[in-house]
Amino acid sequence: MIQKLLIANRGEIAVRIIRSAKELGIKTVAVFSEVDREALHVQMADEAHCIGPATAKDSYLNTINLISVAVLTQCDAIHPGYGFLAENADFAELCKECNIKFIGPSAETIRKMGAKDVARETMMSAGVPITLGSNGTIKNIDEAVKVASNIGYPVIIKATAGGGGKGIRIAQNEQELIEGIRITQQEAEAAFGDPDVYLEKFITDFRHIEVQILGDNYGNVIHLGERDCTIQRRLQKLVEETPSPGINNKIREKLANISIKAARAVEYSGAGTIEFIYDLQEQKFYFMEMNTRIQVEHPVTEMVTNIDIVKEQIRIASGEKLRYRQEDISFTGWAIECRINAENPNKNFMPSPGIIKTYLPPGGGGVRVDSAVYSGYTISPYYDSMVAKVITVGENRQEAVDRMKRALNEFLITGVETTIPFHLNLLNHETFVSGNFNTRFLDLYNLTT
Amino acid sequence: MIQKLLIANRGEIAVRIIRSAKELGIKTVAVFSEVDREALHVQMADEAHCIGPATAKDSYLNTINLISVAVLTQCDAIHPGYGFLAENADFAELCKECNIKFIGPSAETIRKMGAKDVARETMMSAGVPITLGSNGTIKNIDEAVKVASNIGYPVIIKATAGGGGKGIRIAQNEQELIEGIRITQQEAEAAFGDPDVYLEKFITDFRHIEVQILGDNYGNVIHLGERDCTIQRRLQKLVEETPSPGINNKIREKLANISIKAARAVEYSGAGTIEFIYDLQEQKFYFMEMNTRIQVEHPVTEMVTNIDIVKEQIRIASGEKLRYRQEDISFTGWAIECRINAENPNKNFMPSPGIIKTYLPPGGGGVRVDSAVYSGYTISPYYDSMVAKVITVGENRQEAVDRMKRALNEFLITGVETTIPFHLNLLNHETFVSGNFNTRFLDLYNLTT
Repeated sequence: MIQKLLIANRGEIAVRIIRSAKELGIKTVAVFSEVDREALHVQMADEAHCIGPATAKDSYLNTINLISVAVLTQCDAIHPGYGFLAENADFAELCKECNIKFIGPSAETIRKMGAKDVARETMMSAGVPITLGSNGTIKNIDEAVKVASNIGYPVIIKATAGGGGKGIRIAQNEQELIEGIRITQQEAEAAFGDPDVYLEKFITDFRHIEVQILGDNYGNVIHLGERDCTIQRRLQKLVEETPSPGINNKIREKLANISIKAARAVEYSGAGTIEFIYDLQEQKFYFMEMNTRIQVEHPVTEMVTNIDIVKEQIRIASGEKLRYRQEDISFTGWAIECRINAENPNKNFMPSPGIIKTYLPPGGGGVRVDSAVYSGYTISPYYDSMVAKVITVGENRQEAVDRMKRALNEFLITGVETTIPFHLNLLNHETFVSGNFNTRFLDLYNLTT
Repeated sequence: MIQKLLIANRGEIAVRIIRSAKELGIKTVAVFSEVDREALHVQMADEAHCIGPATAKDSYLNTINLISVAVLTQCDAIHPGYGFLAENADFAELCKECNIKFIGPSAETIRKMGAKDVARETMMSAGVPITLGSNGTIKNIDEAVKVASNIGYPVIIKATAGGGGKGIRIAQNEQELIEGIRITQQEAEAAFGDPDVYLEKFITDFRHIEVQILGDNYGNVIHLGERDCTIQRRLQKLVEETPSPGINNKIREKLANISIKAARAVEYSGAGTIEFIYDLQEQKFYFMEMNTRIQVEHPVTEMVTNIDIVKEQIRIASGEKLRYRQEDISFTGWAIECRINAENPNKNFMPSPGIIKTYLPPGGGGVRVDSAVYSGYTISPYYDSMVAKVITVGENRQEAVDRMKRALNEFLITGVETTIPFHLNLLNHETFVSGNFNTRFLDLYNLTT
C-alpha cells in the first residue's frame, strides 16, 4: 500500500484527495503556489511545500519542482487530481522513472486517449460507435472540404490535443469550415503546441452522458453507472446527475457494456470516464472522448454506489486487485451535483474574486459539500472560479432536486458573487424538472435576471 | 398533506425538521425564546415568533403560547422534536382539541409508554421479554424489600415518570434500597410531579440496543434496524452506531421481530424507538422503554436505509399509508454518530458556553453534520450543550470509524471548548475499535487528559 502521497493539485480536489488518504492512514504532502499559502489543502495535509509563484505553469504545472518535492519528502505516489498534470503522459512517465507511482493509467494509455483522433480510431477498432468524420487528422483544406461534404454539414472541427471544451469549433458551411480550420489550428498550436485538427459530424440534438469505469492491473474492469452532464454553458458542465433522466434501461445497459469494452481495449487501469454523445433524434450514442483521470462530477457516482472512487484509485495504484465484481455494484437513489462558482450570473458569469466574508455550507441528510474555502478565504483570480460542489442524493430525482434547492437556499456565502441564484432558477425551471432537454438548454432559456 | 408546520423546538432538531419540511414544500413556523432570537432555526424558517423568556418552562414548554402561535399562524401541524413537549400526552391532546396535528403517536400511546411501570406490563402482555421486577409501583418499603430479596441485588429503582437518565438509582443491598427509594421518590416528585417508583433487577454487563419503528394509522408497522447506544456517560448517550457490533444476525432478527410485536401491541403510529437491555452474560435482551418520538441518534438509521425519518413522520401524521413494506427496506454500510458538546472533557465535562469564534464543519463523502451553530453564534447556558452531531457512513465499521476520525480532525470550532478531543480518544481506543464493550466502558477507561 502507498505510504505517503503527494497531491499535485489545489482547491477542492486536493482537499478531497487528502480526505480519502487520511481515511486510509496514508501520510499526505500538499504543494502550493505563493498565493495559496493559506489554502485549506495546505492546512489539512501533514506537510506542505511551496512550488512556485501564482501562475500555474510556474507552480502546479512545474513538473521538476513537483517531482523534487515528492523525492525530498519521500513520497511513494503522486495524485494529480483533475486538470493541471492529470492527463500529461510525460509527467506520468517522469513519475515512473523516479520510482514514484502516478495515480492514473499508464503513460501509453493517457497518450492513446489524449490524441483525440487516435482515440477515435482505437474505439472504432474496439467496436465502439463513433460519429462520422475524417479518418485521422486533416492533411489540407481540400481534404477537409471533401470529408465535410461527404458527412454533411454542420461539422465540428476538433484539435487532436484539445479537451475540456477547448480547441473546438463548429462549421455550418464550407466557408465557415475553411476559416474554422485555420483559426482552430492556430489556437491549438498556441494552447497545446500541436496544430492538428480532425472533423466530426456535428450532432445538434444530444445529451452528454458518460460512464465511470474502474480497472485494475490484472485485466479486471467494472463500470459504476453513467452520469448525465447535459447542462452545460459554453461546453463547461454546470450540473451533473446520475442516473440519466434521458435514457432507458436498455440504452443504459448498452452504454455500460460498450464502456467496459472500450476500457478493455486500452487495458485501462484506475478510474476513467468514457464520454458519449447521445443523439436524441436517432436515439444512438457515439464515443466522444475518454478522460483518464478523476472527474469533477465523480461524487454523484459515489453517492449512489457508496464507493469512494479516490480510495479505489489509490488501491489500484498500490497494486491491489479490484475489490468489486460487476455484480457487487448496486445503485441506490438519485444524485445531483451543482458546481457553485464565484461568478456573477447576471453579468455574463464574470468572475468575482475577493474575500469570502461569511461561509456556512448546508448540512443535514443527503447533502455533501466538497469545497476548499472558509470565512476569510481569498478567492484568487489565478485559478478557476469554483468555490464548492454541492451534491445531494434522494430516493428519486424529485427528492434529489428538492434537497438541492433546500441546500442551496441555506448555503451562505457572502463577500463574493456566486452562481447559487442561477442554479436555483435552473432547478425550478419546468424543462429541467421534466428531465427532457439537450445540451442547448442554456442557449434556449435565459436563467439570469 | 400538512401545509404549514410549527416546530415546537430549538437547536439542531428544529433545523433538521425545517430541512425536511422545506424539501416537502411545507411552510415552516419557528418559535424562539428571548435568548434564541439569532438562532439558526429562526433564520431558516419561513416565519418565527417569540414565545417567552429564556427559561424553557416559560417558552419551549409553554403550551399555551405554542398553541396560540400555531393557531394565529394557521399551522395545521406541530412537530415537537425531542425533549421539551415531545412525550407530553397532555400537549398531544391539546393539539388535537385545537384541530392541529401533533406529529407523534396518540396521547393514549404516549401515556401508556410514558408510565414506565405500565409500559412494562403492556410489553409483558404482548410477549416482550422484561427484566424481573416489581409488579407495578412499589406501595411501601416492606414490599420493596421483599421484591428485591426475591429478584436478588443489585436492583434498580426507577421513577415511573422518569426517562432520559433521570429518576434512576441503583441499590446494592437493603440499606441502599431503603434510602434509594426515599430519595428517588422525592426527586421524582420534584422533577415530574409524581413520586411513584418501581423495581427492576439491575443487569450490570449489558449493551444498550434499540430498534427504530415506523407505524401508520392503518395498522402497518415496519422496523428500520437497530442502533447500538452502549457508549454512555452518566446514562447520556455519546456515540451511537448501526448495525450493532455486539449482536449476531439471529439476535438482530429476534430484536426486530419483537419490536414490531411491541409496536403493534400499542397500535403505534409514527416514528418510535424500543430500547432494550442486551444482557451480555445471558445473551438475552429485555425491554427497557419505548420513546414515542424522534431520537437524537436517528440519523445513523437514515444513513444506512436512505430513508428520511422526519419526512415519514410528517407523511404518517398527514394520514398517508406507510410507503414501505418490510421487504422494501435494505441496509447498506455502517453508520456512526458522535454528539459534539460544548463541554470541557478534561474538566469533568463542565459546560463551556460562550461565543463560537470560528466554525467550519467537516465535508466530503460519507459525512453528515446536523447542527444549528455558526461563526459568531452564542451558546447560551440555558439549554443543553450539544453543538453538533457528526454522522459518518462507510462500507463497514472500520471505514465509518476512520471517516469519523478524519471528519472530527478537520472540524474547526474555536471560542468554546468541545468534546471533539474526547471523541478522538474514544475512536482510537482499542476496546472501542474491537466492538466488544458494555455500558461501563467510560467508567473503566479514562479518555480525558
